[in-house]
Amino acid sequence: MAENKVYRASTTAPVNIAVVKYWGKRDAKLNLPTNSSLSVTLSQSDLRTLTTASCSASYPAGEDSLLLNGSPSDVTGARTQACFRALRSRRAAIEAADPSLPKLSAMPLRLVSENNFPTAAGLASSAAGFAAFVRAVADLYELPDSPAELSLIARQGSGSACRSLFGGYVAWRMGSLEDGSDSLADLVAEASHWPEMRALILVVSAAKKGVSSTSGMQQTVATSGLFKQRVAEVVPKNMDLMEKAIKDKDFALFAEVTMRDSNSFHASCADTYPPIFYMNDVSKAAVRAVEKINEAAGRTVAAYTFDAGPNCVVYYLEKDEAAVVGSFYKVLGTEVSGWKANAAGHSTDIVLEEPVADTLKTGVSRVIMTGVGEGPQKTDEYLVTENGELVKR
Amino acid sequence: MAENKVYRASTTAPVNIAVVKYWGKRDAKLNLPTNSSLSVTLSQSDLRTLTTASCSASYPAGEDSLLLNGSPSDVTGARTQACFRALRSRRAAIEAADPSLPKLSAMPLRLVSENNFPTAAGLASSAAGFAAFVRAVADLYELPDSPAELSLIARQGSGSACRSLFGGYVAWRMGSLEDGSDSLADLVAEASHWPEMRALILVVSAAKKGVSSTSGMQQTVATSGLFKQRVAEVVPKNMDLMEKAIKDKDFALFAEVTMRDSNSFHASCADTYPPIFYMNDVSKAAVRAVEKINEAAGRTVAAYTFDAGPNCVVYYLEKDEAAVVGSFYKVLGTEVSGWKANAAGHSTDIVLEEPVADTLKTGVSRVIMTGVGEGPQKTDEYLVTENGELVKR
Repeated sequence: MAENKVYRASTTAPVNIAVVKYWGKRDAKLNLPTNSSLSVTLSQSDLRTLTTASCSASYPAGEDSLLLNGSPSDVTGARTQACFRALRSRRAAIEAADPSLPKLSAMPLRLVSENNFPTAAGLASSAAGFAAFVRAVADLYELPDSPAELSLIARQGSGSACRSLFGGYVAWRMGSLEDGSDSLADLVAEASHWPEMRALILVVSAAKKGVSSTSGMQQTVATSGLFKQRVAEVVPKNMDLMEKAIKDKDFALFAEVTMRDSNSFHASCADTYPPIFYMNDVSKAAVRAVEKINEAAGRTVAAYTFDAGPNCVVYYLEKDEAAVVGSFYKVLGTEVSGWKANAAGHSTDIVLEEPVADTLKTGVSRVIMTGVGEGPQKTDEYLVTENGELVKR
Repeated sequence: MAENKVYRASTTAPVNIAVVKYWGKRDAKLNLPTNSSLSVTLSQSDLRTLTTASCSASYPAGEDSLLLNGSPSDVTGARTQACFRALRSRRAAIEAADPSLPKLSAMPLRLVSENNFPTAAGLASSAAGFAAFVRAVADLYELPDSPAELSLIARQGSGSACRSLFGGYVAWRMGSLEDGSDSLADLVAEASHWPEMRALILVVSAAKKGVSSTSGMQQTVATSGLFKQRVAEVVPKNMDLMEKAIKDKDFALFAEVTMRDSNSFHASCADTYPPIFYMNDVSKAAVRAVEKINEAAGRTVAAYTFDAGPNCVVYYLEKDEAAVVGSFYKVLGTEVSGWKANAAGHSTDIVLEEPVADTLKTGVSRVIMTGVGEGPQKTDEYLVTENGELVKR
């Protein structure tokens, strides 16, 4: 019965939200970026992908499969195939060196993946997804590769996924080699270095699907007259300042660079031809709210950042939760779900201006309260049974 | 009674809407720009300022005054004073050379000015206002200065006012001299060179007063990491292309440069710290509408541009009025006022997408249909009587 054995490994992987943004590829096939980027890994208690990788000689031959949140997902795309190929060839090399090992690399793979948050929220689920995929298969194959080495593979699936191989504060070094072998994730600081970092996510419903980030960033590279300045000067400067801010745990600097870099990224989108607009009037109200909170607090206690969509991520430190969460809770507390139990207890004198508050009320559909967290975690929670069947949930 | 004589001159001056934008001063006192700009002067049948300049020894000594749309306006500001000073000193030089001339330069000035459009519309009324002011006083003083020479004075009142001294297609050459004496308006082409140019203005109500352009542009110069690229490369290239487009009457090129330059300007605003947002969700719906009209027409028939506010100006050629005006009329025809009689007669197959149409319906408060037009015109319509009194209207 050994040939029917199902081999399994399960991992969870986190979402990351960049504070220096990835936007633009210098090589679309290898997912090599035009610039380095830096992100905060968010806690998996609030946002995570759980992926079970399994393989078995008993699975239908030649049919790798991926079930994503209960729906079959296409695995024939070039990016997914690049990940499968890279992981299999690493396993094959180990098997060649030690013929006593089971020939897992020859078996079909069955991956099952689930997010603990709605995909519709427009959060960067592909980063967590590809990180979990690569980490789970690497564990299944017992690969000796480090997270940085695995990040090279995850990067080919989805660029920003490489940063989700680590917890804490993570850089994606753009690298300079043509084959992309130096374009990988690099731990700037563990979560434990600055564990007080929190994030309040304002989920904003987009009126309609915007431009995909893959096609959007290539339009920016091709058409924006301002973008080359972002690549050549703005991001390198922001990377240096951000690493310093994290090393020194200097929130005011962290916040300023985060906000400036988000502005620079969305300015590059607006300078694309035709222009790409990810932020809407609700997003802009969130910017004004953060500015008001900082002004009223008399120092920088909050930073906004926006990815390729209208959602606002507000970074703040635990000690300033009353001012930051309290200000938003006053406006949105009874309007939307997602608040943690302690949110209602915060009191603040800060009052957001009425047009800002009204716009937030009409446009924010839920909130997520989270903070900096750890990298992928091995788990014995499986989405595939020992017999290779889907776990009923 | 000669010492009680009231001397008068009346002029109208036009609004201009830039297709390569002025944003950023290299000298705030002299209103010297960081880059050249180029605009289309709009017809005074639809948008104009009428100004009567008068002076008399019988007016209260030392009290220059300006009545703007029926309300007394402060004339003590540095910019207004700079215009008064420059005009008086030119008159004084003429009087010194010919002692037989009346000493107008020593008399108090009384200016009365009226717009034929609501100031609240957020159109660039200060450009028309300062152009009319300078032109009217120059006529009153019988100055021999050319429009280009007068543009040097108007520029000190309001930068973009210098372009309203000419009709048609007008460049503001940034110049390089420290005293600003080569930073002036320059006629690129008369209105008669390309008289088919039309403009449909979608007036969008701003939720609240945005950042003033004077302080906004200085924040951009001081804080935007991308702006220097606009000044160094983007605008010089756009100026060259735009002059070529106008010379060749190449609407497709005119439109692309207009849209790209508007995008670049608003991207620079978004990259300012804190960010400046002039375009709102209604403005962005107008962008999508223009893109849709061009796509459906199978060629470029319309170009959007936005100044320091949410209003959309859509440039198009007379021959494409059915497609352009017809598409907007279908959505807004019965919703808002301002359509010319012929607008209802245009029929087009183009249908704007529902979310775009809905957003336009909720946010456009009126339209203005106009086109390229002439420069300031002398008129015998006076807002001050021969006795120096306000004309009752």
